[in-house]
Amino acid sequence: MHEIAIGIDLGGTQVRAALVNERGEVLARAEERTDAMAGPERVLAQIKMLADGLIAAAGQASVVGIGVSTPGPIDTFSGIARDIPTLAGFVDFPLKKELQKRFAYPVSLENDGIAAAIGEWQFGAGQGLENLVYATVSTGLGGGVIADGRVLRGRKGMAGHIGHMSVMPDGALCPCGNRGCFEAYASGTAFTQRARERAFACTETLLGAEGAPVDSRSVFSAARRGDILANRLIDEEAELLGRGFTSLLHIFSPQVIVMGGGLSHEFERLHPGIQGYIARWAMPAFKDVPVVHAALGQNSGLIGAAALAFLAAGTQDHMQPISIT
Amino acid sequence: MHEIAIGIDLGGTQVRAALVNERGEVLARAEERTDAMAGPERVLAQIKMLADGLIAAAGQASVVGIGVSTPGPIDTFSGIARDIPTLAGFVDFPLKKELQKRFAYPVSLENDGIAAAIGEWQFGAGQGLENLVYATVSTGLGGGVIADGRVLRGRKGMAGHIGHMSVMPDGALCPCGNRGCFEAYASGTAFTQRARERAFACTETLLGAEGAPVDSRSVFSAARRGDILANRLIDEEAELLGRGFTSLLHIFSPQVIVMGGGLSHEFERLHPGIQGYIARWAMPAFKDVPVVHAALGQNSGLIGAAALAFLAAGTQDHMQPISIT
Repeated sequence: MHEIAIGIDLGGTQVRAALVNERGEVLARAEERTDAMAGPERVLAQIKMLADGLIAAAGQASVVGIGVSTPGPIDTFSGIARDIPTLAGFVDFPLKKELQKRFAYPVSLENDGIAAAIGEWQFGAGQGLENLVYATVSTGLGGGVIADGRVLRGRKGMAGHIGHMSVMPDGALCPCGNRGCFEAYASGTAFTQRARERAFACTETLLGAEGAPVDSRSVFSAARRGDILANRLIDEEAELLGRGFTSLLHIFSPQVIVMGGGLSHEFERLHPGIQGYIARWAMPAFKDVPVVHAALGQNSGLIGAAALAFLAAGTQDHMQPISIT
Repeated sequence: MHEIAIGIDLGGTQVRAALVNERGEVLARAEERTDAMAGPERVLAQIKMLADGLIAAAGQASVVGIGVSTPGPIDTFSGIARDIPTLAGFVDFPLKKELQKRFAYPVSLENDGIAAAIGEWQFGAGQGLENLVYATVSTGLGGGVIADGRVLRGRKGMAGHIGHMSVMPDGALCPCGNRGCFEAYASGTAFTQRARERAFACTETLLGAEGAPVDSRSVFSAARRGDILANRLIDEEAELLGRGFTSLLHIFSPQVIVMGGGLSHEFERLHPGIQGYIARWAMPAFKDVPVVHAALGQNSGLIGAAALAFLAAGTQDHMQPISIT
């Protein structure tokens, strides 16, 4: 009888769940829109329903546990969410304990950036590496780090909030409350915002013509049709990412930076600009480090969460050793 | 017979050497000005002479090895210096091998920021902690990280170059060749440079009056006498450090940030501004992390280098376990 784990990716927009085997393959999945304003009880009920559906679908397989990726920062050692900005009511909330109450299987909890880093490390673009930084560029900008062959957790398991390094003094307002964060400039949200402002101020662009919505998809689409503003916006985004990634190279010295998140759908278009910035501006010893596309796409966190459940269960035959500190 | 180690702190200005016991106490020391332009042969001869003098002074004690802290970034796994900006001729130079040739004792090599972090962790302000960031604010701005109870090394052992995270797009030129690095704004050199420019443009200040030199010491001295410009310069420096340290809190989630280097002589004056920035702008879960003064002063790297030698020799009774990856 083979073993499987449930991975849950709790996000501010979607709750996603998957049945994952020991090779990191998704056997079944389910998702629904997060009832983000309804409070913890309701969100926990959503998780419970999705997971139970998958457990029922597991058939003969043995469920080893449930891994949950959550928006942070959350103290994964105590399991208590101090304040999750994207989910109402998760203030000083004992998330891990409340999750465990609802399941007969062991529950593991991880900050979303770290969960996704574990997914890419175990089953994705970082397999076999000792040092990697995972960056997700999406609504927000988050990440997680594998260093010297181990998950970097830090105090309360809250390391890896790479979106909240300052890249501009007194700069653009960030959802975290500070100004000038990497996230406030280089996230998908910031990219779209910039595109709207610039399209509004520009007459010679396809963007926003005849009231069409301006979003990241429309920018890349216009760029492919030769739109100058759209191409410039993308080049600027690549430069912003390149600058932030260069900082991360110097700070962590990874073997690779793995880029995921919504904006990584257009990785091929962004990559030359990102890698070009690094080649030009990183210190000599760091210039050759590649930035690569997340191999698990939108499932890095989901599969990483399941990997955590396998690890907690000690069933890690197919996995690299992860030490849970 | 008790055991001792030789710690060497090779810097662009001084080569310093110390005889250190297992409790991290400096029993004897020697130093001289680095002949930084003379090339590797000469610098190695300086190290050899200083170390031999201390070994001769060791008397009955048994020397377990020699630990060397070097300016980076250097690949400490291969021991090859690719290019040390502050030392002429250290280009693709097999530093570890050449050092080992000259000594009968085992030689260990470490990037200076990491060596200092090890010193503070083992014997200084970070004793007993699992997670700390050490930052040296001096001619340059460097650092090292202890994460989850281990030294963070990364690819080629080059992690921790915290001075080279970008804090300003296309900003001030940094010695590394890039623009806008944390070092280019918050190092002691940058602080002094700013003080000179601002003093020159200001008539109502004691700074630079009657042609007196403007350096960091004179700024703090003028500030104590109530000089408005001097106090403003210091407050700005504290804010710059606070902003950079806040980024490091979010990225590494340390339990403490240990500040060393020349500018930390004035830690008491800078600290309220630094801690105030963190309390105001860090994400809630990180606001309470303290910034503390390096306990070993200018000897963090020297003592950290000696600690490495003890570790390489397996004589670590008094030390926390360090894994050499």
